[in-house]
Amino acid sequence: MSRVFNFNAGPSVLPVEALETVSKGIIDFNNSGMSILEMSHRTADFDAVIKSAESNLRTLLGIPEDYAVLFLGGGASLQFTMVAMNLLPEGATADYTDTGSWASKAAKEAKLFGKVNYASSSKDKNYTFIPKTLNLTKGAAYLHITSNNTIYGTQYRTFPKPETGVPLVADMSSDILSRPITVSDFGLIYAGAQKNMGPAGVVTVIVRKDLLGKSGRTIPSMLDYKVHAENVSLYNTPPVFAIYVVSEVLKWLKAKGGIAGMEKINERKAKKLYAAIDSSTLFTGTCAKEDRSYMNVVFVLKNKNEDLEKKFLAGAKERKLVGLKGHRSIGGFRASIYNAFPEEGIDALVKYMEEFAKANS
Amino acid sequence: MSRVFNFNAGPSVLPVEALETVSKGIIDFNNSGMSILEMSHRTADFDAVIKSAESNLRTLLGIPEDYAVLFLGGGASLQFTMVAMNLLPEGATADYTDTGSWASKAAKEAKLFGKVNYASSSKDKNYTFIPKTLNLTKGAAYLHITSNNTIYGTQYRTFPKPETGVPLVADMSSDILSRPITVSDFGLIYAGAQKNMGPAGVVTVIVRKDLLGKSGRTIPSMLDYKVHAENVSLYNTPPVFAIYVVSEVLKWLKAKGGIAGMEKINERKAKKLYAAIDSSTLFTGTCAKEDRSYMNVVFVLKNKNEDLEKKFLAGAKERKLVGLKGHRSIGGFRASIYNAFPEEGIDALVKYMEEFAKANS
Repeated sequence: MSRVFNFNAGPSVLPVEALETVSKGIIDFNNSGMSILEMSHRTADFDAVIKSAESNLRTLLGIPEDYAVLFLGGGASLQFTMVAMNLLPEGATADYTDTGSWASKAAKEAKLFGKVNYASSSKDKNYTFIPKTLNLTKGAAYLHITSNNTIYGTQYRTFPKPETGVPLVADMSSDILSRPITVSDFGLIYAGAQKNMGPAGVVTVIVRKDLLGKSGRTIPSMLDYKVHAENVSLYNTPPVFAIYVVSEVLKWLKAKGGIAGMEKINERKAKKLYAAIDSSTLFTGTCAKEDRSYMNVVFVLKNKNEDLEKKFLAGAKERKLVGLKGHRSIGGFRASIYNAFPEEGIDALVKYMEEFAKANS
Repeated sequence: MSRVFNFNAGPSVLPVEALETVSKGIIDFNNSGMSILEMSHRTADFDAVIKSAESNLRTLLGIPEDYAVLFLGGGASLQFTMVAMNLLPEGATADYTDTGSWASKAAKEAKLFGKVNYASSSKDKNYTFIPKTLNLTKGAAYLHITSNNTIYGTQYRTFPKPETGVPLVADMSSDILSRPITVSDFGLIYAGAQKNMGPAGVVTVIVRKDLLGKSGRTIPSMLDYKVHAENVSLYNTPPVFAIYVVSEVLKWLKAKGGIAGMEKINERKAKKLYAAIDSSTLFTGTCAKEDRSYMNVVFVLKNKNEDLEKKFLAGAKERKLVGLKGHRSIGGFRASIYNAFPEEGIDALVKYMEEFAKANS
């Protein structure tokens, strides 16, 4: 098989080593005589898988003991609702920073449960930067941020600090495990797996246990973090296979030297690509330089030209550089370069961009 | 690899043909140069997968055009909440038949949204039968049933008929696709995939479109069937891989001749096993004979003996008959024999039961 360089924003590139292991586990898991897809979630075999995933995630991110780690179905979009149901009491206000479509969707769902204050927004500049000053509510239930904005290619380099006692809640779907974080700075972190952790179909929630059960709401069991925490993610049948892939991706990440090493590689990969953009005669970046994402590199033609865009994408595909089409709200191009994206792919893209600029300037 | 006979109640046995295909798709899907796990849900490749799953499901079950078919994350347990949120207006009453733990959990979640009337219950007889007479509410929002009770081994042979205009809602998680049904008799059918359809991680919802958007409630987007129907299951990132496996299992089922043929095989398999139980000197069934499930065959020792139970299970494992331990609420044994469970496994179990009875009577 000849692998392409997969720049998709998510679901996205995964480590080959993990893919090879799970491909075998689909036929026969652990010499059990059955596929991982056929295995009951109440078996010792699967118990070892989910425990390995939790334990490696705790080690990699340095998750303190007073935090629960959950693996749930339903996707990060369902977390927009669960966060509000679980942490926003009737009549209370939650602060949200509006740094992109996903941030704004999170706020929209929270509005069904209480008051939402936009502590900041970069919407009027088409989300091309991360606002640095926040208009916080005194005694807010929590402050919600989106750590990396997949569509616009911006990323918090340092996280905002809410008032003492106000939990910081972060959607880290598109940059979890890409750099070290201090988990104790957050009340709750959630992340869909399909960028840096695994396939679509599972979301990880890391939550300080003392925050649970305090919204005063009657919460359906499946939407209640407390129920899932008490049942260590086995209240219902969890997405067994997706958790298995996550466990293999985390083993790979650990073997690669963990997150600190990964951050250095990610920084090097991103800077190489941004340098090519900044020195190009044809291409230009779209975001404030200090807020540029190391996961999603967004760039456009200096002079909009749809035919030339199509030509660039078609030529890229011929070179096995796929998934580079920009999101419809910006146009142009987006290179998503998550943990598992190989540096050779960056080099190939940079080379192609240079050649294309030369031929088309 | 030597495959075991997997009697697990779910996740459970899947067709080998489907497993072999998806194992290859994990490495390289459709010569795309990437794994199905790495593939964006917005690609033409995945569009073909989800369309194939929907189209084959429509053909196999005979789903009319005025029904939406959804593939969602979150599991069947989340449907307990979604059914009530979407179909039970404030102040209205829903009828529920209480035929087991899952039926009762479904009712419990609905109680958070309105009045629940138990139209029937077999709880006082430890759910060993399906009640035939129902105490229905005039003008109920819907009547909810659980078509097959995995834990207790009972199954509706004919479905109850609610008053005209009252939709019948069925949790068919453990027997969907095992026998023909008339979809137009139902307002909504939901089923977790992990028995007859695929792996854990996706639930299928079949719902008559005119029922949607009428509960008068403000529903979070991710819990609103209407949102998912309008976005053909792509409102958020769906569980891509689980849907892919479902699409392959449905292809297998179609190639096997569809549901009518499958029903005959299922009936033959189940009757063979029930005949062995009924003629045994050592074992006995637990359910009313006319309500026996063709999917989950529950049996116990005539005289309770925990040591002998353990001995039976240990001997079974040696013969590669695994997953036979009964649910803790009944004890004894349970043989789950879904569509993909091979008839040779039934023969092997029957032979072992006879030998064991002879040696231990």
